[in-house]
Amino acid sequence: MTKYTSEDLLSMDSNYRRNFMNTLAGFKSANLLGTINESKINNLAIFNSVVHIGANPPLMGFLLRPLTVIRQTYENIKSSNYFTFNHVNTGIVAQAHQTSAKYDQHTSEFEATQLTVENSDKHPAPYVAESKIKIGLKYREEHLIKANDTLLIIGEVIEVIVNPSFISEDGFIHLDQAETVAISGLDGYYKAQKINRFQYARPGKKSSII
Amino acid sequence: MTKYTSEDLLSMDSNYRRNFMNTLAGFKSANLLGTINESKINNLAIFNSVVHIGANPPLMGFLLRPLTVIRQTYENIKSSNYFTFNHVNTGIVAQAHQTSAKYDQHTSEFEATQLTVENSDKHPAPYVAESKIKIGLKYREEHLIKANDTLLIIGEVIEVIVNPSFISEDGFIHLDQAETVAISGLDGYYKAQKINRFQYARPGKKSSII
Repeated sequence: MTKYTSEDLLSMDSNYRRNFMNTLAGFKSANLLGTINESKINNLAIFNSVVHIGANPPLMGFLLRPLTVIRQTYENIKSSNYFTFNHVNTGIVAQAHQTSAKYDQHTSEFEATQLTVENSDKHPAPYVAESKIKIGLKYREEHLIKANDTLLIIGEVIEVIVNPSFISEDGFIHLDQAETVAISGLDGYYKAQKINRFQYARPGKKSSII
Repeated sequence: MTKYTSEDLLSMDSNYRRNFMNTLAGFKSANLLGTINESKINNLAIFNSVVHIGANPPLMGFLLRPLTVIRQTYENIKSSNYFTFNHVNTGIVAQAHQTSAKYDQHTSEFEATQLTVENSDKHPAPYVAESKIKIGLKYREEHLIKANDTLLIIGEVIEVIVNPSFISEDGFIHLDQAETVAISGLDGYYKAQKINRFQYARPGKKSSII
């Protein structure tokens, strides 16, 4: 095992450090974030930072940095109030990654990557038709992380579109059956294979497998 | 495909909704969070909410809710200023899940689950010796999410302990080689299998596989 100190991290080449630090947290979710701008152009961008915030009220969030590509997503959320998360599955990994290219604001990433817009009657933000788990959200709040100007954006889930065959009796959605992928770092895509589900853990009692 | 509205989500049985909402974001990282309390008892708790915040300065964060088990972690971070993230690997999944049991504050989850404390000369927080990727952090800031009182805690990475054989030339840590697992929901553990890494995407150009 090698120990890296603060000094080691700060003296790494910037590309090396970016890969190192981005893989360090562990596996991350893979979602396409859909928004619409004021000229009615649909924007789509891949995010590896979507997180669960709470079940009741149903809240989810994502982290974004003030970069060129990402700014379109942010401006669209602020002007329209709505956005979507669409799980990336094994069949659309290459197209999903391609949405990270810096297209200009007049180009829709849906057209550029040949992914299909699916509209909702609940909100104006576009879904990805090819995605098997789609989530519509309404903007709720944001937090500026002072240490590096990253933004945490929180939305309330107002619509979920999913095939009920993926959902077990207790509400657990089987992401492997939906072929949802995981991300490591900025550019690594992974398939997942279930090991086990464990029962609620109690002191002094070995937790059984569900 | 079934559409779930806000009303459908709010009328779900609370256990069903908890599983549904916790699996909805996609795959999540699996980390054991180590802290020490003022009586020098080492605390260990599994978290599925560790996220990358930034590479320079090196920052990571996690989300926590004001619950009993979690409060020990929070109090220890506030009193000692330091904490560790330790990747859960396939060999310690059952022990890692068992740390979620509500042990009292006089019991160390290390002893209760037979995981081994590894100390650092950089900070007082305990690492998990069995973990193959270990991260030491210093508390930086926190944000209260108003929508549901969840806290986002941010730390600066001050030490990383990892076998360099897992790290590629460009800094990418191969989490599958370290046998790091992913979590779905509150209790589902998954192995990951690499699909591809893709090069930096550019408009009008198909991104090659690395």
